[in-house]
Amino acid sequence: MREGRLKHFGWGREGEGLTPEEEGFVLDRARARFGVQDFEQVEPPALADLALAPPRLVPPASLKPICSSERYDRAAHTYGKAYEDYVRALGGDYAAAPDVVAYPRSEAEVAAVLDWAGGSDAAAIPFGGGSSVVGGIEPRVDRRRYRASVTLDMREMGRVLEVDSVSRAARIQGGAFGPALEAALKPHGLTLRHFPQSFEYSTLGGWIATRSGGHFATLYTHIDELVESLRVVTPQGVLESRRLPGSGAGPSSDRLFIGSEGILGIITEAWMRLQARPRFRAGCAVRFKDFFSAARALRVVAQAGLYPANCRILDPEEAYNTGAGDGTAAIMVLAFESADHPLEPWMRRALECCADHGGAPEGTAAADSHREGAAERWRNAFIRMPYARERTVKRAIIGDTFETAITWERFETFHDKVKAATEAAIRTATGRAGQVTCRFTHVYPDGPAPYFTFQALGRHGALLEQWTAIKTAASDALIAAGGTITHHHAVGRGHRPWYDRERPALFAAALKAAKQALDPQGLLNPGVLIDP
Amino acid sequence: MREGRLKHFGWGREGEGLTPEEEGFVLDRARARFGVQDFEQVEPPALADLALAPPRLVPPASLKPICSSERYDRAAHTYGKAYEDYVRALGGDYAAAPDVVAYPRSEAEVAAVLDWAGGSDAAAIPFGGGSSVVGGIEPRVDRRRYRASVTLDMREMGRVLEVDSVSRAARIQGGAFGPALEAALKPHGLTLRHFPQSFEYSTLGGWIATRSGGHFATLYTHIDELVESLRVVTPQGVLESRRLPGSGAGPSSDRLFIGSEGILGIITEAWMRLQARPRFRAGCAVRFKDFFSAARALRVVAQAGLYPANCRILDPEEAYNTGAGDGTAAIMVLAFESADHPLEPWMRRALECCADHGGAPEGTAAADSHREGAAERWRNAFIRMPYARERTVKRAIIGDTFETAITWERFETFHDKVKAATEAAIRTATGRAGQVTCRFTHVYPDGPAPYFTFQALGRHGALLEQWTAIKTAASDALIAAGGTITHHHAVGRGHRPWYDRERPALFAAALKAAKQALDPQGLLNPGVLIDP
Repeated sequence: MREGRLKHFGWGREGEGLTPEEEGFVLDRARARFGVQDFEQVEPPALADLALAPPRLVPPASLKPICSSERYDRAAHTYGKAYEDYVRALGGDYAAAPDVVAYPRSEAEVAAVLDWAGGSDAAAIPFGGGSSVVGGIEPRVDRRRYRASVTLDMREMGRVLEVDSVSRAARIQGGAFGPALEAALKPHGLTLRHFPQSFEYSTLGGWIATRSGGHFATLYTHIDELVESLRVVTPQGVLESRRLPGSGAGPSSDRLFIGSEGILGIITEAWMRLQARPRFRAGCAVRFKDFFSAARALRVVAQAGLYPANCRILDPEEAYNTGAGDGTAAIMVLAFESADHPLEPWMRRALECCADHGGAPEGTAAADSHREGAAERWRNAFIRMPYARERTVKRAIIGDTFETAITWERFETFHDKVKAATEAAIRTATGRAGQVTCRFTHVYPDGPAPYFTFQALGRHGALLEQWTAIKTAASDALIAAGGTITHHHAVGRGHRPWYDRERPALFAAALKAAKQALDPQGLLNPGVLIDP
Repeated sequence: MREGRLKHFGWGREGEGLTPEEEGFVLDRARARFGVQDFEQVEPPALADLALAPPRLVPPASLKPICSSERYDRAAHTYGKAYEDYVRALGGDYAAAPDVVAYPRSEAEVAAVLDWAGGSDAAAIPFGGGSSVVGGIEPRVDRRRYRASVTLDMREMGRVLEVDSVSRAARIQGGAFGPALEAALKPHGLTLRHFPQSFEYSTLGGWIATRSGGHFATLYTHIDELVESLRVVTPQGVLESRRLPGSGAGPSSDRLFIGSEGILGIITEAWMRLQARPRFRAGCAVRFKDFFSAARALRVVAQAGLYPANCRILDPEEAYNTGAGDGTAAIMVLAFESADHPLEPWMRRALECCADHGGAPEGTAAADSHREGAAERWRNAFIRMPYARERTVKRAIIGDTFETAITWERFETFHDKVKAATEAAIRTATGRAGQVTCRFTHVYPDGPAPYFTFQALGRHGALLEQWTAIKTAASDALIAAGGTITHHHAVGRGHRPWYDRERPALFAAALKAAKQALDPQGLLNPGVLIDP
């Protein structure tokens, strides 16, 4: 099934990437944006040229068959896919490389690796697909406290073990990648229908550990609601919750592990709630004169109890940058889907809500129109977007995204403040104007999840500093204005300073105490969420 | 607003109760069920005759104005509304009465009471409306460890402080009773629409602390999803989460306190997600030949993505007992509601699902038919039911309920096992047949929340023992068959033995550690959820 190995630098597998046409599209827009013709280009070092310290740890004989300290394995597990990761990798900085990468095939082997790490004073870093954009899987650990680091790559535990078609649920291993998981469910007419942007290169365990955001723009937005029960291997033993459709027996055990980002244990299995594969669809793109008009329409749709599967909005510039629009209008991508019933009444009412705020559908709201026009152009751009970063970073283009959530009554002021702070930081950090655009990825009756993209032209040698200044200003602004540091990108190591300001201090104390109970040595993913 | 004070024995306020006609209905059915004409009747002791130990604690001068050790206050805060509570109260056992009842008017006073309790080695028992059926508010504490007990009755913190009509949310104090809360929201055209059976005599803080189950039979079943943010006073200080429509920043802080049953802190305020008041309704009752046919139809409805507000089913005997049916058919009470759009397409499709399993609507599915026929008869019975217990317990009638949840593929076997075990236990404990009936209170795509009612004829002097034998057998059976000990009645002290078997041991360790961080002296509600 796997055509090539995952890149150690870049998105996806070796041999994959933007086509020359796609690269041309991205670079042309960057040329126009920054008013330049050529970019200074720096190539990443070849794998063979990376300076890796000798491994500080040698696995015991019983674990040798599942461990590697090969150059490729260590390099490919050093970084996630954050912009700063690309910059540091471009500069050849692999100081944080794990000493050993383990590929456990069973819970017993996961437990054995944890025992070995504990006995060796090594940090243990859980690893799914490695698509973290917040430093969640980087073995950046305090060398005074940890002698070494071991990454547990869960890819060998990637199967669907059991399917219950009656209750619509499946028991799936934590290391299952998106495509493999869906392929195993398809013959049953079922789907998890959780499609984060990283779908192809991320795993179920990773989604659960990071509260990943998926396909559904309303209702079941996060993976959280799709979890029926969990199995977790902690340094203190295995924990398993019951398969239950609902319970009120104390605080939810699953909710402690959902979003725990690998600091409490390693998610080895979950019973996941599935959907029947949709047979009915109604979808279209709707044009609005500006972003706030689209947002006001969307608020009404979100509060109407219609629950569209998709109702993303793009501001005019973002629509232009992704090829979904011409830059003169905000676009809403609106879709309903069902395995059970035709959706015309739902779609009709949603379009009325849009019309009340000046929204005009593009073309017809036909069953397959989500595969045409602006909606489809945006969808393609969405899937291909992650491949751009390895091309743009080489050219000192700073392109990154950050996302948040805020209640409706604060949204417009919030948007303007965050956008202005980010634009100002770009100008200060790079000496020239950049661009900040916004879309909504998910919406709730009480507020949206805005997703910002920023573009700046940096300078090789100063990229990390420039990016940090912009990221810091944006994060400071959104925390000050009442948002969350992340709606679905997680906290990891990168978001710690702002998470620490957002999170109630007493909850940090409770979480630290819970970690102490499950991981008394502080082996697991130190530095993520809390200090170990 | 309050007409009388809350009863120290019985449901609701003094002066309220079943009408003679209602009592006649209940007793006639009991006579027919058990084949008896008369019941041996024992009256509860009068308040003035209760033997209460002298209070072991005297409040400091600063807290005197908000504290009481009066006979009524102590007696009215000794028990919740569990069947066993009525039996013990009937026998005059008030050994667990709190020494002092405090009525704090502010967070500062809550904190002051906790400080005082901590300095006095007294247990602190949070108290909302006192409707717990699991011993959740009973000061049944280890006298070797705690010198006394102080109940914190939150009724004086019962206001709606702020309403945000744009995001549809309100900031509400933890001590707000259902009717007061709804009355304050009504002028804004908004509603929390959370109606547990105890609605009139329970509080927002109690609902959140116990993961109460409300009006909606699908989707937003528990209070959990309606919580936008929380303020909690712990012995270590105040904790407040941000108002956010959604977040992926680490494990949810709110979810640790939702369901914490007063062992981690006292919920003083919450921003709650509201709904616009419904303008459109479609509802009717549907008859099925048996309970399992109704359940199979309901599974299809639950998996169809239609999200009815109501889709409860009653087995034929339960329909008969509540006056909703004649005992020959199972009844489904089905209703859709919306503030936004007419619901005919939704209702039509749901009725098709029912027809596929032999379901026949009773009368028309008109907008107001939920106020007629079987649906309305059942609704009235549902609201009046809690008043029956103080009349039946005096006559040695054992009548109680327990509820759970289970995935669909196990439901039918589960139902039969639990029902058979409970029936057998009734026969063994009382020497004669009783009755066990079932309904669904909430349903999910992956399973229902079955709610069992049992009726037995006990004997004064042996009631507690007989009830305990039946409750134990039922709980053992449902835990053995894979269910949860509670879908929405909470754990308290009564469900501890089964909760301890259901809950992963390592989660208990994590919860205990979290409690230790927030309540190092173990003051709060000792014995609930975990051992202090």
